Parts: sequence; C-alpha cells; structure tokens
Amino acid sequence: MYQDHVSKSGGPAPARPKAAPVPLARGREFLSIPGPTNVPDVVLQAMHRPAVDIYADELLATTGHCLETLKAVFRTEGSTYIYIANGHGAWEAALTNTLSRGDHVLVLESGRFARGWGDQGEFLGLTIEVLPGDWRKAVDPAAVEARLKADTLHTIKAILVVQIDTASGVVNDIPAIRAAIDAAGHPALFMVDGIASVGCMEYEMDRWAIDVSVTCSQKGLMMTPGLSFVAASPKAKAAHRTAGLRTAYWDWSARDLPENYRKFCGTAPEHMLFGLEASLGLLFEEGLERVWARHLGLASAVQAAVAVWAEGGALEFNVLAPAERSPAVTTILTPGFDPQRLRDFTRHNAGVVLGSGIGDLTGRAFRIAHMGYANAPMVLGTLGATEVALKTLGIPIGDGGVQAALTALQRHFGTPA
Amino acid sequence: MYQDHVSKSGGPAPARPKAAPVPLARGREFLSIPGPTNVPDVVLQAMHRPAVDIYADELLATTGHCLETLKAVFRTEGSTYIYIANGHGAWEAALTNTLSRGDHVLVLESGRFARGWGDQGEFLGLTIEVLPGDWRKAVDPAAVEARLKADTLHTIKAILVVQIDTASGVVNDIPAIRAAIDAAGHPALFMVDGIASVGCMEYEMDRWAIDVSVTCSQKGLMMTPGLSFVAASPKAKAAHRTAGLRTAYWDWSARDLPENYRKFCGTAPEHMLFGLEASLGLLFEEGLERVWARHLGLASAVQAAVAVWAEGGALEFNVLAPAERSPAVTTILTPGFDPQRLRDFTRHNAGVVLGSGIGDLTGRAFRIAHMGYANAPMVLGTLGATEVALKTLGIPIGDGGVQAALTALQRHFGTPA
Amino acid sequence: MYQDHVSKSGGPAPARPKAAPVPLARGREFLSIPGPTNVPDVVLQAMHRPAVDIYADELLATTGHCLETLKAVFRTEGSTYIYIANGHGAWEAALTNTLSRGDHVLVLESGRFARGWGDQGEFLGLTIEVLPGDWRKAVDPAAVEARLKADTLHTIKAILVVQIDTASGVVNDIPAIRAAIDAAGHPALFMVDGIASVGCMEYEMDRWAIDVSVTCSQKGLMMTPGLSFVAASPKAKAAHRTAGLRTAYWDWSARDLPENYRKFCGTAPEHMLFGLEASLGLLFEEGLERVWARHLGLASAVQAAVAVWAEGGALEFNVLAPAERSPAVTTILTPGFDPQRLRDFTRHNAGVVLGSGIGDLTGRAFRIAHMGYANAPMVLGTLGATEVALKTLGIPIGDGGVQAALTALQRHFGTPA
Amino acid sequence: MYQDHVSKSGGPAPARPKAAPVPLARGREFLSIPGPTNVPDVVLQAMHRPAVDIYADELLATTGHCLETLKAVFRTEGSTYIYIANGHGAWEAALTNTLSRGDHVLVLESGRFARGWGDQGEFLGLTIEVLPGDWRKAVDPAAVEARLKADTLHTIKAILVVQIDTASGVVNDIPAIRAAIDAAGHPALFMVDGIASVGCMEYEMDRWAIDVSVTCSQKGLMMTPGLSFVAASPKAKAAHRTAGLRTAYWDWSARDLPENYRKFCGTAPEHMLFGLEASLGLLFEEGLERVWARHLGLASAVQAAVAVWAEGGALEFNVLAPAERSPAVTTILTPGFDPQRLRDFTRHNAGVVLGSGIGDLTGRAFRIAHMGYANAPMVLGTLGATEVALKTLGIPIGDGGVQAALTALQRHFGTPA
Repeated sequence: MYQDHVSKSGGPAPARPKAAPVPLARGREFLSIPGPTNVPDVVLQAMHRPAVDIYADELLATTGHCLETLKAVFRTEGSTYIYIANGHGAWEAALTNTLSRGDHVLVLESGRFARGWGDQGEFLGLTIEVLPGDWRKAVDPAAVEARLKADTLHTIKAILVVQIDTASGVVNDIPAIRAAIDAAGHPALFMVDGIASVGCMEYEMDRWAIDVSVTCSQKGLMMTPGLSFVAASPKAKAAHRTAGLRTAYWDWSARDLPENYRKFCGTAPEHMLFGLEASLGLLFEEGLERVWARHLGLASAVQAAVAVWAEGGALEFNVLAPAERSPAVTTILTPGFDPQRLRDFTRHNAGVVLGSGIGDLTGRAFRIAHMGYANAPMVLGTLGATEVALKTLGIPIGDGGVQAALTALQRHFGTPA
Repeated sequence: MYQDHVSKSGGPAPARPKAAPVPLARGREFLSIPGPTNVPDVVLQAMHRPAVDIYADELLATTGHCLETLKAVFRTEGSTYIYIANGHGAWEAALTNTLSRGDHVLVLESGRFARGWGDQGEFLGLTIEVLPGDWRKAVDPAAVEARLKADTLHTIKAILVVQIDTASGVVNDIPAIRAAIDAAGHPALFMVDGIASVGCMEYEMDRWAIDVSVTCSQKGLMMTPGLSFVAASPKAKAAHRTAGLRTAYWDWSARDLPENYRKFCGTAPEHMLFGLEASLGLLFEEGLERVWARHLGLASAVQAAVAVWAEGGALEFNVLAPAERSPAVTTILTPGFDPQRLRDFTRHNAGVVLGSGIGDLTGRAFRIAHMGYANAPMVLGTLGATEVALKTLGIPIGDGGVQAALTALQRHFGTPA
Repeated sequence: MYQDHVSKSGGPAPARPKAAPVPLARGREFLSIPGPTNVPDVVLQAMHRPAVDIYADELLATTGHCLETLKAVFRTEGSTYIYIANGHGAWEAALTNTLSRGDHVLVLESGRFARGWGDQGEFLGLTIEVLPGDWRKAVDPAAVEARLKADTLHTIKAILVVQIDTASGVVNDIPAIRAAIDAAGHPALFMVDGIASVGCMEYEMDRWAIDVSVTCSQKGLMMTPGLSFVAASPKAKAAHRTAGLRTAYWDWSARDLPENYRKFCGTAPEHMLFGLEASLGLLFEEGLERVWARHLGLASAVQAAVAVWAEGGALEFNVLAPAERSPAVTTILTPGFDPQRLRDFTRHNAGVVLGSGIGDLTGRAFRIAHMGYANAPMVLGTLGATEVALKTLGIPIGDGGVQAALTALQRHFGTPA
Repeated sequence: MYQDHVSKSGGPAPARPKAAPVPLARGREFLSIPGPTNVPDVVLQAMHRPAVDIYADELLATTGHCLETLKAVFRTEGSTYIYIANGHGAWEAALTNTLSRGDHVLVLESGRFARGWGDQGEFLGLTIEVLPGDWRKAVDPAAVEARLKADTLHTIKAILVVQIDTASGVVNDIPAIRAAIDAAGHPALFMVDGIASVGCMEYEMDRWAIDVSVTCSQKGLMMTPGLSFVAASPKAKAAHRTAGLRTAYWDWSARDLPENYRKFCGTAPEHMLFGLEASLGLLFEEGLERVWARHLGLASAVQAAVAVWAEGGALEFNVLAPAERSPAVTTILTPGFDPQRLRDFTRHNAGVVLGSGIGDLTGRAFRIAHMGYANAPMVLGTLGATEVALKTLGIPIGDGGVQAALTALQRHFGTPA
C-alpha cells in the first residue's frame, strides 16, 4: 500500500488510530428509508424554475397531463385528484368525500397504517371496526369474507386496507381481498391505501374493483413530499353525492369543475406539479411493468441477504411468510441488539441512512427500503454497508448475506450468456 | 443606427415589417401577478437538494426554526402551524379548529376573499352572515361596531376579514376593526386573512388582538405555492378545546405534540421547508419594517402611474379612496377596453405578465402586483411595458404615468444630496 | 395612504427617516453590465446535473450539436472550435493557430479591446502595428484601405478588429472594412473579435469574408463565463499549416480529429456544454434575425434616454456619431460627476448593477448593457432606476429620458392598431 | 413472492422472459470513472445562481479564498493559479511559464500521462527525453538517480512525473523520487502532475520540494470539469523570469497583479469559482488527512475484490506490485474477455458506468475509480454490480470478491466493539 511506502521514504503516514476509524461516508448519502425516497435529479431540476401565472397555458397543460397520467398509474378510468397534502391528507379526502358521520367502517389490520387511517375516520365521527390482524402477517382474505358474510344488513359502508404497510413490511393480496368481498356479496366501498405500493408493484384499480385509491408523491412516485393523490370509481362518486363529511377543501365536486384553480381549491402547487410531471415521465419512460419487475428484482436481493443474516439469531424478518414480504420495503426485527446502534454506524461510517422501526416496532426493528428511484448498486451498497456494520458491531449474523444478494441478482439476470 | 449602416455596405438589414414588430420579450419574465410572486433564486436553490430522513436532525431544526420565525412574522406569542396546503386549506384549518356546526360567523365583505372564506364555512355547516361591503371600499369599522352592538346575546362566534383583498386591491384597517370590536365589547374570535398582506405590510397579531391569523407561502413570504400558515391566540386555543368541526389532518392538538411528524400530520414537506427557511431568512435579513417600507415605496410608484393614466378615461382605480389602496397589489378597472388585449400585448411583446381581474371583475380589470421579492426596476419595468402597451394599443391614457412613478420614487429617496 | 391610517388607529407607522431612505433593492438583481450577462434560468438548469462519462453518447451528441450550431451563429461553413477559456484564451488561439513569431499584424483601434488583442500578439512575438483610432469613433474604412494600399509587399499578415468594443461602446462596420481590404487587394487574414457582438447583431462570417472569428460564452450567447469560440475560414486553415506559434492546447489540427477528447485537448467541459446547448437553443428558438432586431429595439430605448439626459450637460455619449453606437452596450461619459456615486446608488437602492468605465475611461464613465437575455422591462427598469438615481443625486439631466425611451419602444411596436 | 400470489388470484404476473431480463438500472447512475467524478449536490447547487458583476466584492472574496485554499490543498507556501482550462491547459501553463524553446526535459514514464505531458512539451519546442518506464510499474527512483547523476552538465532543466497515472493506475513515490534527485544533487525543476491524486492521497508540495504542481477540478477536487490549478515554488518563479515560452494567457506575472481580471487573464469563471469554493469547503470540512484515509479504505475494498476475481484467470491487476496500486483508481486487464461487454452490462443493467481502458490499454482493460466524492456503499455497489455482471456473462472469476471487499472494510473499521 501507498501508506507503507510513504512511511519509509517521505514521512509519517496519515494516522489511523484503531479506536476511531475514519468514516467512509463522504459521498452521496444513501437514503434507504421507505419515504421520502430518492428524488431523481431531473425531478429536482424540473422544480428549479421561476413561478408562472396560475392561468398560464403551460401550467394548465401540466395539470391536465398529470391528472390523466395518474389514471394510468392507478390503472383506472375513474376520476383522479391531486391534493396539496401528504398521505394523511389523502386519507381524509377519501373518507370525507364518501362517508357520513356514524357510518360503519371495517379496517383490515396488518401493521400500522390501516389502523392509522381508521383512527382518522374515528376522529371524523365514523364508527370504526378493526378486523384484528397481525404486524407479522398479511390480511387473511378468508377472515374478511367471514366478517362480511356476517354483516347481513350491510351495515359496513367501507373497507379500508393498505396494499403495503410501510411499518410492518407486509404486502396484502388486494385481488384476493376483492375476491373475498365478492364472495360475501358485500356492497361496501373498497378503499385501498397504495401509498407504499403504487409505482412499486402491480396495482390494478379497475380490474380489482377498488373504489377509492390513495397514494402520495414521495415513495414509488419519486417526488418530493407534499402531494397526494386519490382516485375514485363511479361507485365512489355515487356515494360522494350523499356523503355528509364533505368539506370544501377536499371536495371532489368542486375539483371536477373545469377551472384550474378548482382542481386544487385555490392556488396550484406549481413547482411540485412540474416535478410530478417529470417523475411520472420517468415512470412511463421505463414502463410500469418494468418498474414493478425492477422492484421484484431488488427485493429478491434484499430478502436473500436478510435471510442469511438471520441465521445468526440476532435479527429476523418481521413478516413471517416469504410471500407476504413486500417488494418495496423490508422490516427486520432485532431481538439481539439495539437497532439504533446499527443505524448510527451505517450513517456515520458509510453514509447509509436505514429506516427505523416505527409504531409497535419502535426500538425493535430497522427497515431497508428498496422502492422508487433505486437500482442494483444502491441496494447492494446499502446491504454491503449494513453487513460491514453488523460484523464490526459484533452482532452475530450468518455469513454471506451480501453474497446471497449477488446470487439473487445473478438469478434475476439469468444464466451466463 | 447600425441598421442603416449595414444596409449601405453589407447587405439588407434584418426585415422589420410594420405589421408584426419583433417582440422585446426574451429575457427573464416579469411575473407581476399577486401570487405566486417571484421566488428568489436562493429559495429555489435551497429546495434543490436530496431528500433527507424525516427524523434527521437537520429537518427537525429547520421545522422548529420555521415555526418560531413565523411567530415573528405574525408578531405573536401564540402558536403557529404549517400546513401542506394552499391558503384555502389554511382557511379550513382556521375554521375547523375553533368552531362547531351551526356556529354563527360574521364575514366582513370587501372584495372576493372574505366571502370565499365564508363560503367554505357554510360548506362546513356554519351559519354565515355577511356584513355587506363593497369591492371598491374597505370595511367600515363603524358598521362592524354597530352590528356587533346589536348582537347582545353574543351569538356571533367569529368575525372573518381579510387585511388585503387580492382581487379588489382593498386594504382593510385591521386595528380600527379591532377597536370597533372592542367598542362593542364583543367576545367573538377575530380571524384575519393575511394571505396577501403578511410580509408586505404591518401585521401585528398580538397588538391588534387577532385570534386566528392565516397566510400562505407564495405571496409576501416569497416561496413556491404549497404551504400555508395559521397562528392561534390563547383565546383561539381555548375555543379549540370544544370545537366540533375538528378533523385529524388540520387538528392543532396533535400538531402541538413534540414529534416532528405530528406537526404535519404525517410526512414533512421537506423541500418546501428548506425553501421556507431560506425565504424567511431573506425577510429578516432585510428587516420586517424595511420590507413594509419597501412595499410602500413601490406602491407609491404604481399608484402615481395609474393615477396619471386614469386621466385618459379608459381606466381607473378599483379602490376609490387612496388610503384604502393596498401596498401590495393595485386593481385597475378598464371601462374603456378589454384588459385581455393589454395582458396579451405585454406578455407577448415585453415578457410582462399582468394579473387579470378575477371574481366580479373578470374581464373588467387588470392587476399589477408589487409584493414579495420586488424592487424598483421590476416595478418600473412593469409600468413601462404597460404604458408602451396602452399607447401602442391606442388606449387613451394621460401622458406621463411612468414619469410620475419616477417622481414618486425620487420622493421616496429624498431631495438631492 | 395606509400608513396614515395606521398612525391614527393602531400605532406608529414604520419610521422612514429622510436621511436614510429604505432601499427598494430586494428582488432580482438587474445585472446591466456588458458581460457576464443574465444567464437564462433554463441554462442554469441544464448545467445542474450529474457529471457523465466523457465518452457517453449524450455528451458526444451535445458536443457535435454545439460545434454545428456555432457555425450557424457565426454564419460560416468554416471550422468551429470550443475552448475552455475566456475571450482572451480565444484571442490567443486565433493568433497562435495562424501566425509565426515576427509576423506583422495590423490592429485597428477603436477602444480598448483590439489593442488588448494586439498586446497579446506582441507578447507572443508578433510585430504589432496599430492603426491609430479613437475611443469615440469607429474605425475608418478609408484609413484601413490607405494603409493596406501602402503595404505593397504584403508584409501585413493579419488585420485585427473588434465588431463592438465593450469598453467604448463603438460598433465598427465590418463589411465596410472588408470592402476596404478588398479595395486594397490585400491578402492579409481578416480576424474579427465578435465577443460583444455575436448573438447581439448581424455577424456574417462567410459573406463578409472573415478569416478568423472569435467570441465567448458570457455575452450575446447567454452562458456562464468559461467557454470561448473560434471559427476559421479555409484561408485561415491554410495559414495554420505553416504557423509557428502553434501549441498543443489551442491547436486546431488536433481538434479536427474525430475523438471527442481531442476537441477540448482533454476532458470536455461537460456542464458548460450542456448549458451552451440550452442557450444556443434559446437563440435559435427565437430566431437569430429576431434576436438582432430585439437588440436594436432595446438599444433605441437606451439611446433615446441618454440623449435626453445629456441635455443637462453632466453626461454624454462616449461615441460621437449615432450610427457608431452599438446595439449591445452604451458607454456614457460623466464629465459632471463621479460615476461611482451613481453606480453605488443604483446598486444599493434599486438592485441595479451598472457597468463601470474601464481602461482609459476608468472613473470617467458608466455603461448600460442591453445585450443577451434582455427584454423591454429589464431595460426600462434599468433606465428608470438610473434616472431616479441621477435626479436624487442632484446631477443635472434633461427631463424625460425614460419618457423618451418609452416613445422609442412605442415607435418600435408601431402605430396604434 | 408477491408474484406467485398475483398469479393465483389476480391475473398474470409481470412477464420476465429469460432472454431479456429487466434492467435494475433506474436510480442514480453510479459514475465510477476516474474523472469527471461525482459532483456533490452542494457544489452543483452553488453554481446554480445568477451571474454577478466581475468586480463584485463577493466574487473577489471567493477568488481570494480559492487561491488561498489551494495552497492548503497543495501544501505549499508558493503561488497558486487558477486556469479556465482542463488539465492539459495546466500542463501547458506549467511548461510555458518556466522553460524556453530547446530546453531539455526528462519525462519519467509510468503510463500514459507523463508521456502526454512530454508530448505537449515537444510541441512547444522542448527537447524531451523519456526515462523509459512500464505501464505496469511505478517509476524506479534508482533509475532516476542514475540518469541525473549522468547529467553532469545539468543539461536537464525539468523533470516531469505524475503522482498517479489515471490510465495505468500506478502511484509513483514522489518523495522517493525527490530523494533520488537530491541524491544526484541535480538542480532541475521538479514538476509533478497531481491531476489524479491531489485531494485523494498525501501530496506535500513544499515538504517534497516540488517546484511546479498541476491538478484540475474534476477528480479529487469534486468539481465540474473546466478549471485547472498550478502551484509554483520560489525556484519555479525564478525560472519564470527568463522563460522564453511565456504567453499572455497563461502568464504568471500578470496573474500575480492585484486586479481580479488579471488572475484569469480576462473574465473570471464565476459559476465555477462558486462551485470550487463549495467543493474545497467540503474537503476541509472533512479534513484533508481524513479524505486521504477514506481513499485508502475504499481502495482496500476494491483491491481485495479484484484480487479474488483475478483467481479465475480472466482478469488481473494492471499494476503488478500491490504497493504501486493507486488509492484513487484501479486498472484491471482483461486477457479473458472483451471489457466492453462488461461495461455495457453494468451500465445497461445496473446503472454503473465503469471506466474503459485508454491509451495502450484500449480494448484490453477496464477501470474502477474510487476517487473524490465516494463512500463505502458507492464502492460496494459498483463492485457488487461488477461481480454480478462478470458472473452473468460467464466470465471465470474467483468466488467471493465482494465478500473480500466487505472483509477489507470491516478491517478498516476495526475489530468488533
């Protein structure tokens, strides 16, 4: 090494005391958290521009284009709405536009977020019933069917579920739940939170007969936080006509009017719309199906590494069944150590920001996101830094996690040509 | 001229047919509309950066700093809230946090926006009473006092007013209205929309005993659209405790909790917060009082020019009394011509975007904004282009409007040294 | 005014002491200097991107596109070269590629820059002869013809001239000088510095039989400083083959090779090329002839204002003959005052940066640029701020300078429709 | 996996035909080439701003600050110069400022670049003698000493060497070469090209008695290409006084004058200076010694991986002795395959841009850069993608290259805490 070299001939080498190794963190930070995800440079670039008149043709075109493209994102012929809000705002928009005080709503639990949505409904005066689930398992379609069959009077007006729970890392089988609703012959509105899934995996609003879809800008859609999106089926629009919780800001009817300012109940979020137009452009330039397949490929690498690490006994998948682990984020329980030590190490020494456990998993888990604008070396770099950190911290892990990830990617790309 | 020169010796000069003069518009567009206003370059620059972990120290510091600085903006010791929303969202937040279905609210009309706020209240189930006003006049404090004195049972729970109406260009005398409320000994919540005024003119929430203040990012605060701000007095916070219209997304109680994600009911609008921090920095670097004085100086130039143009009879101030014309935006009625012709000319030929008349003034007015990140040459350039356009279009105007603006600025700067 | 209003009812108005008026400068700085000129936002945006492999297809395409487009800029079929350098680098490239130590060169003086180019030649070992000129007049083609006719042995190898002298504000009649050379039947290389003119006014390299053209990025071409451009005619390329001053860095022969790194003698200036591509795009989107006509229109406004101001006796045009005043920059002598006082006032109080006098005019002049990305309100704002400053400083000027500028623009746009 | 899931209940899974696997490349491109390197976001941000007057205080301060900070970069008390040019321009500046036509110069070969520098000298009329070296070995100090001892008349005026050869990946032992020169008692100017090393490894201009140092912006200094830097010792400045090759553009004497425009021989490259100020800020915020140690750590990972891969026989280190492999770039020969296949695969499928072999190694090597703004996950991601590519392409490599890199990093960070 050059270092020895210098020692001999030119003077002392840079001191590297054992106790405080030099960080290898300077470089682009690896933001491996499940939202906000990495914002592509072209998206940030599109937002860096002067403001325009809110009546300018360019802005009207961008707005129309975004609303149309969101239909392709949700795979729906229904109506789409853009809210200046985060996902919680979209939740509120979904509920207030379709329901009335006292309405009975069934929440399908599988982690933190369906319950959180239900809590918002309770605040609004809805009657929330939680179909009990488990942070470590997907919603059981059979249980949904059974509960709905029991509701012979069709008291339940809406069913809330997330496709991917960002906290637990569970992916729910939305078409199977749809099938369960159909099997029960139940007319409730089917509302799906695709916040951590739309733009990451298959989402088929019309084919799966979803009535209200919700997502936001800062995960699969690769934009900065600040926008959220709702899509409504004709059945949801019908419910809207008699909904008692409607408020002017979220109201679909006003937003269906032609004037541009109506579409945002006031001033349009110009810069974010220009950014959204760019990020949606990236999505369709790559091709939605290819985006989904990319997420599957990346997830296979992460899951392969974690499976090996877990052999050491200090950590394990939060989600028990492999088929229920999401292609966008992996939640890892840490029975053997304090996950904050790991997160501090990777951030400080390698510039890798891992997600923390949240909700019930606070202090008991960490999360690796593999969603949005993410490619193979980003995932491998994150896994590599994590493995080095685990080893350096003396946490017992199975050997060869990153090696297994490489093998998974090699499998993705196929046998040698 | 060089042109003749070339004609003689080198060949034909560039053709400039009379019928289609070459535009002189290429250069930075002059956005002279009352919001969004010009976003300073350092603000756009601050937003052009990678996303960060929503739990990152830097973001927590920025959030805390913005919330504190907003107190200095509103001049209050009360609580401040940042909403991912435009001004209409802040309106809804103000009402839902403090009132209950059926509450009686008095709206002080002076243009479009107080009524619009009232309309949102009506949608929420409030009982809205409009104290009739005039688009061409400020609210009459005496009329307010009389109406409140008549409300002996104190049925009225809240009074809504705007400081500047962006549509009419009226500035209301908020301290005088406060004095009227006090004279009537009325306990109603005093809610002021400072959307077009905060950051442009004196606004003294605590000194004027305002209970709820509302403003947004894209006018005097020089940020991109997408954020709005509410400040609440202790009296408003007390009303909040029993308010029936509260919803989770807007709710102050949750936002008063310490966790950062509570402050936004979910994911923080990171990039906009970084931009806001930069724009608030500009405001206080200049000094709030100096910002207000700058707006007065610029307004004096615009008003001087319009007063001269008006002598031609084709246009006139919308606001009749000089003292009621706002220091942030000037609305000009166009009895003698179609204002769209003017706006098209200045945009196409000079790169100047004038505001259109809106609401009752649609098609009957244009507006010149002099708010936010605006200096003398921006205003003079806008006035100059407007005067050239009016002349070229053959619209009769008094001679010397821009000249009068120069004189007004000279008066601002004082007598020769 | 609102101010009085507040005084009565709400408290003291913002103090505006006569002695230190509040500046009206906050807003976008008006950079009215003759280079660097205002860089369009889309150009800065194009430069804000990750680096790419210097062998990437995109960069090769951009390079090729820029080199081709520069031919259209210079109006030549000759060869174009992009240097990572400012204009002085391009000067050196022009001389070293075509001449040999001891070669006799005729410099046509009309201000600072042709002489400066000559000085660089002297440093290189060329024999420089200056055809004496005047900072206040264009080069006299008859004097050129006379001098060349006297050179019966054709000792003179090259003639250096600027089209516009950025310091004096003179525009030389290049086709007339070409005609003079032709009339003398002289074979010297004709080298023209178009640094302050290309992209601002007609420049016809091939039609005017120019052998070497030089310009740079930061004036009419609206880019950041750091690139300069040279174009060479076949005659210049022939001279190149025997030139003794050639060095590897500037050498045309290497740059004519196909590999991309050859075109820059090493690593390509990627970000600047992406910016240049964007700025050239703007130029041709508008249309070169229209760009020239825009400059003529803007110059007519500036010249009208200065002519009126000059009636006061304190200032005057540097260039005596109106036909010799350039359409890109106007130099104004200030016999009656210290120009620094004016520049300080406009910058501090109005955010307008005027150019200073340079070279022989240091401390005796100021300059107003009207070149590059400039439109009517930018020029009017600059003139307005200047007039207010002159008046406030008590400098005697004729009344109505800005008014005359407005009239000039109105004349540009034609009679009322 | 979710995919099977969907197959059962919801419809066909996304097709992933074996023949054309979906790329996993969308995400931030990994630019793993030895220059331009990754430009930090804050540097690009600093460049995205309006132009300023070249006489503005801010620009003067930035220029002075950069010139001073470059002394700390080179570790010298000598003079520093900033050229608007790439590294080849700095080469020309170094030679022309110190030498005269016919001067004898000794070039120490160890790859492509010292010879390239010598070629430029030959073009300038210098007499170039190459001390023959080897692309696979560092310069032998003993050979240098021997050659210089033979030059009893001190005909050799200058010695040119690179610290790191970007093409071969060799690092030369500069202090050992200095010791050889001293041992020979030779007075020649010692000129070192630190283009691929300054900012990456120890460089001690004054301690090692270097007379002229050369580097550029786009490698260890993390800026966009377009600037290069030269530092001169008092001995070099003395030689300058009689140097015959001097030209105005590169000349040190003019640049030593106080006026700012002198420092760039014309217009300053404003935006690049603002960027440079930001990138130098990053360098010293981290600490120069820590930057060097970071590069050593990253290099240890890359070298560990390549050593393992090489066991398969299809590839090998270009540099034979481990101690002579540079800490900034690793050059890998590919006797067993066409390296373009590898580069195409990683770029297309993983978004990783590997460096190509250049010069004598064109078509026979690839390069992995680990220089500049680079951290552990960037290197691990690049290595990971490369290993997957090599395996997928069926190229025989030793197993466990990335695993070895992880171990190297773990060794860097120390034993478990």
